[in-house]
Amino acid sequence: MRRILIVNGPNMGHLGRRQPEIYGDATLDSLISAVKTAFAADDIAIDHFQSDIEGEIVHRLLQADDEADIAGIVLNAAAYTHTSVAIADAVAAIAKPVVEVHMSNVAAREQVRQRSLIAPYCAGTITGFGALSYFLAVKALIS
Amino acid sequence: MRRILIVNGPNMGHLGRRQPEIYGDATLDSLISAVKTAFAADDIAIDHFQSDIEGEIVHRLLQADDEADIAGIVLNAAAYTHTSVAIADAVAAIAKPVVEVHMSNVAAREQVRQRSLIAPYCAGTITGFGALSYFLAVKALIS
Amino acid sequence: MRRILIVNGPNMGHLGRRQPEIYGDATLDSLISAVKTAFAADDIAIDHFQSDIEGEIVHRLLQADDEADIAGIVLNAAAYTHTSVAIADAVAAIAKPVVEVHMSNVAAREQVRQRSLIAPYCAGTITGFGALSYFLAVKALIS
Amino acid sequence: MRRILIVNGPNMGHLGRRQPEIYGDATLDSLISAVKTAFAADDIAIDHFQSDIEGEIVHRLLQADDEADIAGIVLNAAAYTHTSVAIADAVAAIAKPVVEVHMSNVAAREQVRQRSLIAPYCAGTITGFGALSYFLAVKALIS
Amino acid sequence: MRRILIVNGPNMGHLGRRQPEIYGDATLDSLISAVKTAFAADDIAIDHFQSDIEGEIVHRLLQADDEADIAGIVLNAAAYTHTSVAIADAVAAIAKPVVEVHMSNVAAREQVRQRSLIAPYCAGTITGFGALSYFLAVKALIS
Amino acid sequence: MRRILIVNGPNMGHLGRRQPEIYGDATLDSLISAVKTAFAADDIAIDHFQSDIEGEIVHRLLQADDEADIAGIVLNAAAYTHTSVAIADAVAAIAKPVVEVHMSNVAAREQVRQRSLIAPYCAGTITGFGALSYFLAVKALIS
Amino acid sequence: MRRILIVNGPNMGHLGRRQPEIYGDATLDSLISAVKTAFAADDIAIDHFQSDIEGEIVHRLLQADDEADIAGIVLNAAAYTHTSVAIADAVAAIAKPVVEVHMSNVAAREQVRQRSLIAPYCAGTITGFGALSYFLAVKALIS
Amino acid sequence: MRRILIVNGPNMGHLGRRQPEIYGDATLDSLISAVKTAFAADDIAIDHFQSDIEGEIVHRLLQADDEADIAGIVLNAAAYTHTSVAIADAVAAIAKPVVEVHMSNVAAREQVRQRSLIAPYCAGTITGFGALSYFLAVKALIS
Amino acid sequence: MRRILIVNGPNMGHLGRRQPEIYGDATLDSLISAVKTAFAADDIAIDHFQSDIEGEIVHRLLQADDEADIAGIVLNAAAYTHTSVAIADAVAAIAKPVVEVHMSNVAAREQVRQRSLIAPYCAGTITGFGALSYFLAVKALIS
Amino acid sequence: MRRILIVNGPNMGHLGRRQPEIYGDATLDSLISAVKTAFAADDIAIDHFQSDIEGEIVHRLLQADDEADIAGIVLNAAAYTHTSVAIADAVAAIAKPVVEVHMSNVAAREQVRQRSLIAPYCAGTITGFGALSYFLAVKALIS
Amino acid sequence: MRRILIVNGPNMGHLGRRQPEIYGDATLDSLISAVKTAFAADDIAIDHFQSDIEGEIVHRLLQADDEADIAGIVLNAAAYTHTSVAIADAVAAIAKPVVEVHMSNVAAREQVRQRSLIAPYCAGTITGFGALSYFLAVKALIS
Amino acid sequence: MRRILIVNGPNMGHLGRRQPEIYGDATLDSLISAVKTAFAADDIAIDHFQSDIEGEIVHRLLQADDEADIAGIVLNAAAYTHTSVAIADAVAAIAKPVVEVHMSNVAAREQVRQRSLIAPYCAGTITGFGALSYFLAVKALIS
Repeated sequence: MRRILIVNGPNMGHLGRRQPEIYGDATLDSLISAVKTAFAADDIAIDHFQSDIEGEIVHRLLQADDEADIAGIVLNAAAYTHTSVAIADAVAAIAKPVVEVHMSNVAAREQVRQRSLIAPYCAGTITGFGALSYFLAVKALIS
Repeated sequence: MRRILIVNGPNMGHLGRRQPEIYGDATLDSLISAVKTAFAADDIAIDHFQSDIEGEIVHRLLQADDEADIAGIVLNAAAYTHTSVAIADAVAAIAKPVVEVHMSNVAAREQVRQRSLIAPYCAGTITGFGALSYFLAVKALIS
Repeated sequence: MRRILIVNGPNMGHLGRRQPEIYGDATLDSLISAVKTAFAADDIAIDHFQSDIEGEIVHRLLQADDEADIAGIVLNAAAYTHTSVAIADAVAAIAKPVVEVHMSNVAAREQVRQRSLIAPYCAGTITGFGALSYFLAVKALIS
Repeated sequence: MRRILIVNGPNMGHLGRRQPEIYGDATLDSLISAVKTAFAADDIAIDHFQSDIEGEIVHRLLQADDEADIAGIVLNAAAYTHTSVAIADAVAAIAKPVVEVHMSNVAAREQVRQRSLIAPYCAGTITGFGALSYFLAVKALIS
Repeated sequence: MRRILIVNGPNMGHLGRRQPEIYGDATLDSLISAVKTAFAADDIAIDHFQSDIEGEIVHRLLQADDEADIAGIVLNAAAYTHTSVAIADAVAAIAKPVVEVHMSNVAAREQVRQRSLIAPYCAGTITGFGALSYFLAVKALIS
Repeated sequence: MRRILIVNGPNMGHLGRRQPEIYGDATLDSLISAVKTAFAADDIAIDHFQSDIEGEIVHRLLQADDEADIAGIVLNAAAYTHTSVAIADAVAAIAKPVVEVHMSNVAAREQVRQRSLIAPYCAGTITGFGALSYFLAVKALIS
Repeated sequence: MRRILIVNGPNMGHLGRRQPEIYGDATLDSLISAVKTAFAADDIAIDHFQSDIEGEIVHRLLQADDEADIAGIVLNAAAYTHTSVAIADAVAAIAKPVVEVHMSNVAAREQVRQRSLIAPYCAGTITGFGALSYFLAVKALIS
Repeated sequence: MRRILIVNGPNMGHLGRRQPEIYGDATLDSLISAVKTAFAADDIAIDHFQSDIEGEIVHRLLQADDEADIAGIVLNAAAYTHTSVAIADAVAAIAKPVVEVHMSNVAAREQVRQRSLIAPYCAGTITGFGALSYFLAVKALIS
Repeated sequence: MRRILIVNGPNMGHLGRRQPEIYGDATLDSLISAVKTAFAADDIAIDHFQSDIEGEIVHRLLQADDEADIAGIVLNAAAYTHTSVAIADAVAAIAKPVVEVHMSNVAAREQVRQRSLIAPYCAGTITGFGALSYFLAVKALIS
Repeated sequence: MRRILIVNGPNMGHLGRRQPEIYGDATLDSLISAVKTAFAADDIAIDHFQSDIEGEIVHRLLQADDEADIAGIVLNAAAYTHTSVAIADAVAAIAKPVVEVHMSNVAAREQVRQRSLIAPYCAGTITGFGALSYFLAVKALIS
Repeated sequence: MRRILIVNGPNMGHLGRRQPEIYGDATLDSLISAVKTAFAADDIAIDHFQSDIEGEIVHRLLQADDEADIAGIVLNAAAYTHTSVAIADAVAAIAKPVVEVHMSNVAAREQVRQRSLIAPYCAGTITGFGALSYFLAVKALIS
Repeated sequence: MRRILIVNGPNMGHLGRRQPEIYGDATLDSLISAVKTAFAADDIAIDHFQSDIEGEIVHRLLQADDEADIAGIVLNAAAYTHTSVAIADAVAAIAKPVVEVHMSNVAAREQVRQRSLIAPYCAGTITGFGALSYFLAVKALIS
């Protein structure tokens, strides 16, 4: 059985309450549960890690490099997408493929969200499909 | 039966011969055939349009707005992604959802490819998964 | 009898359906008909050309240089206003006066629309008055 | 009888003597007289205000907001077009439509004249037609 | 009895009518009266000066430097905040403390309002609290 | 009894020792005690949270959203003011009003301190008054 | 017998009439004839293609990749030199050497002409020698 | 007897009190008197005009164009040097030579003072010599 | 016996596995051990602290300010070098000398690594010598 | 017999040893000999000057202006191409035509090599053909 | 008897021949002779040094620091004004006052001439008066 | 016996007299002597070269490439660090390792000193330790 690790960044724990006109009103727990259910039949286990702390995300990514059954990582670094060279370095440092996801279409939002420091080191990027972005990302990793 | 229109931009007809270290060695025809096959079971028909001419792509997008059975559009505007306000205007002008795709991870390439003029008007973006990007985009449109 | 050539750029054929909150709901045909009617009494014939293709607009402008009875040109290059050095070169290359028009107030819109590559080579510019912009432009050319 | 207010900014009182290769050799008085004559038949009265002082232009615009018979304003803010947030704020603060005019084609001149701070708040802009710009602007306001 | 001078810049005389969704519907007179009343008990007299003219604001600030009983100045330079090196120089030239105030949260508005030329020379800045900004500024000066 | 939460960012625990020519020589504890005392008579309780860790500040802000008796938040994000999209997102995500404060006049300091990523999402900003900035901010929240 | 393909971009068909002070008064036909004559003795055939349409130039370049007897390409992309990522991609996509030519010294002209998007993918560049630029380019390709 | 007009801009009336470490402690009156005395023997009369108001400086310059015995103008536009297109336009509009002076070495001061909008239209510039700058400027005009 | 504190930032714990073509294949533990051994003879003790969390590095630096026997600090802030105003503030806040080190030659790497926010507040910087950078930095501190 | 002067800039004396993957392994002496031989039949003498010193190149160019039999100059300013206003001034100061050459395709290299300060003052530019660039440049001068 | 050293930079030896429409047709020798004559009566000796080599100018400036009877330096660094940090450092390194001069009004010329690296370290600057600039500069130094 | 070459750039000959608050009051001779003495025991000979002329530094570096017993180079290019592509090219052209040194902490100085053109081509960089920078650099080369 292979595992996929989903990593969520700052403010994602507030999902469902945070700007629902952008992010919808489902909570992070229900989103992750739905992903788990969807891929159970494919014999894919989903690990989940959420942190508001940049360095903890760095740490979790490095750790995943040592966990042999993790086949790939889905990363929504949220605000850190635009400011964190440290997370970008972690993605570059590890051997596992990382898929960057965003729920909203960041290209249609503020200037500060136009640049992803992380994208150049990822296998690919999926943005704008809400919760569906996560499903597509897991799909991409297992294809 | 619903239809999905796939639109490919300049130089995509050269696929398979053009920088295969980036784009792979499958031709555009074989790629489109594979997409057609994959979604036939879902009762999804795939239309395909390729042009090297910016204005023809504008025209095809506007036309699709009038074709009632087209449920959505997958758009790989290739080089025009970075220079065409006209295609961006066409995407904004029509009522059908458009998903932007790229085969390569454009974020990891030259500076001129870092900006998509089209992305802000699309439903979402999928980049970096090679031919798989198209499959995920059709998937996203029909979900 | 003198002739005035009106040239419209990409997406203008979709007028009346494209973002009607910006461009109104009259079609391009009805707009051009109204201009023809308005100036018929002044013995001014109106030619009209619309294309989504940058190079065809270049070509039409160059051609007009050879048509002796064309007294001047009204040009709404739409999206190409902001990206086309080729059309700007064509305007510079011909001897007929060109008046740039826009229906919307482009200065109040997105950053990418703030720069007109074409304006420096035109006789003048009229923006923001909807269909009226075309009437004023013809008026300006025949004064 | 409706009134249109024409407001002219700094150095415009020197018209006819100032760089005649750009602005022509008619004086401001003769220009305004010609506009008055041209629209008398339409039962349009023309008010005129010229000042070299940015704050006086701000003041005149605000005042016009209270003069019920003023139907609209033609504003040539001259040099303040490029530097005055205060006049832009005044245009935004009042309910009357304002049409920005310039005699010369500012797009073909120095870099500092490429940006109009005022244009985004105006109904429209007419540039490059010399004295004719004023006639077209009044025409636009009464149409 | 100490005096505090409040200086208001261009378009502030239009308060109550100007963009009430941003600035509220109280007039400048009622705002100043309220400030006077609030601090009367503290034996603080409030002087008020409003001008649309940059140079008159410069002049009033320099003059205040010579009025011994003026303890400090509350300055809302409005649009000149973003364009006036002359007012910034005046603030730097005088020995009295100046507190910059804004009614709206300028950081959440247009790009041109993001830079205050005056702030570096002020004792401090208070923005975003509507009329309350003035009360806090007087409070700050007398603390 | 209403509560106001004061949040202090990195290096603020070193207050009194850190660059006293800028920040004064009072410690953070004595500053907070003074604020508590000052507002006790108004039946306002002051909560205080200091952290050097960006993500912990994000977390504390989100948490405050769930504490019903917290009426508002005073936030001195210190260095994170200029680099943290994550804290800006947290401020935007919560329903409580946040007032940004700074002890020093950041506008008069280094280039990197000229931009606040957080200010656009705050109710208002108070800078430059040393410890007094906190008193004014609490005052603003309870007015 | 080897062939060299010369490709000319927008407005080049107007040569001889377009800004003769910059481009001279010879027509494109006479220029190409002269090149043909000059290299006939070297057993070099010259193919010529001119289009005002960006995408047709892309297409012609890709096509040339399949024509075995074409030894190299001389490309004057004219205005598209400065705006076309699509043509740059086509040059990069093909295996034949491409020499970029310009008749005028673009470095001495407007800012917008200072950047060639195409040059990085060409074998070399020859600018400023009028019609002679073409002769030197063919010479370079056959050396 | 020829006349030289000296024009001083905003805050210059505060000379002697304003930042004396930069501008010295002589007043503007004493400076002008000294210049008058110095050139009396050369049969040169000195006119002087000081204003804090940009538009009044514009007006005075235009007026000087009509005063036949004014041979030239010495202009210290102070803060308006860096922000006033209107004064630059006035200098360009008049036929008399204008010499720009500054007392301090503006090149060694803040970024905002590094650009003179006026200098391109002046005969020459003299900066950094304190009161002596004015003497040298008059000298230059009469040589 | 004096102590030197070495602080390592994010991803440095992965040393030996992280991009070995840049950072070599020695682990962080072996590197620190080697430094300890090298300076034991000089009666210098080496403390070591590694964290992926920006705020913990801030905290450790402030703490070191209170530890009397720490003579100086060697700081490799890794990715935070380029993004952390907070660590820069901490370096500025403390009285101990800090030497910035990098193993790789950051000047030869990506654009985002060209700017060190921390360097201006350090005593000096040593970059590019791999593990040797640490030895030289300790040497510098004890000289 | 006419003479052509070839001027080579800094590091060109190291040709053949300097980055041979870019510049080839022929020495400068052999390159110049080959050029001399090639044009001997045309009765063209080749002068050669190489210097690492910017001012000596300036001097040689000015001197050439006085040598009547020098018909033109081929200039490879190497690194000074991108930094020397002095050499650009010298090219502008002299009456002889100067052709700029580069062996490598500078457009495909580092950012700092994208700008030629010298090109605007030259007759034309030839880049990217290795040693052949010099032959083409002499050819261009004698045509 | 005091001495003033005049230093002239690159291409100045070509004076009289170099762009006479900008620099006039007097040679450098005649200009220096005229300055010598003009100040002989004031018991001022004029030394002159011209070099096209940046480092020789640096050297001459440093040397002048040791020549006790040199009271000040007049420096026209010509093209090096805009590119030489080395000469700027030399001006900063010496104790003698340096006056920067230019014959032309550099503010009215190309972009690259808008920035003087040297001006911030000079006592003052005199530009635009042709040969007269040198006389005024010597005058300034001896006043 | 191995040799290390130390190269010093412009104004370094003035060491001890030049801005001693930055560079200290030791002369260059005494500094070099101290380095020689320090490494004599290690059987390392120190060569020294100082020049104010950019091209001579280029030349000395190229020459060192041919001197077999030179093991490495310590380069303080001083002001040329920030402006010389030619010296950067020389460092890139030679096979010997070059260590860049600076006595002052350039990161804490003016904007123009923030960029080193040379650093990307060096083995490493050591800045901020005064004379000690040279000792550390030699140490680094021989390790």
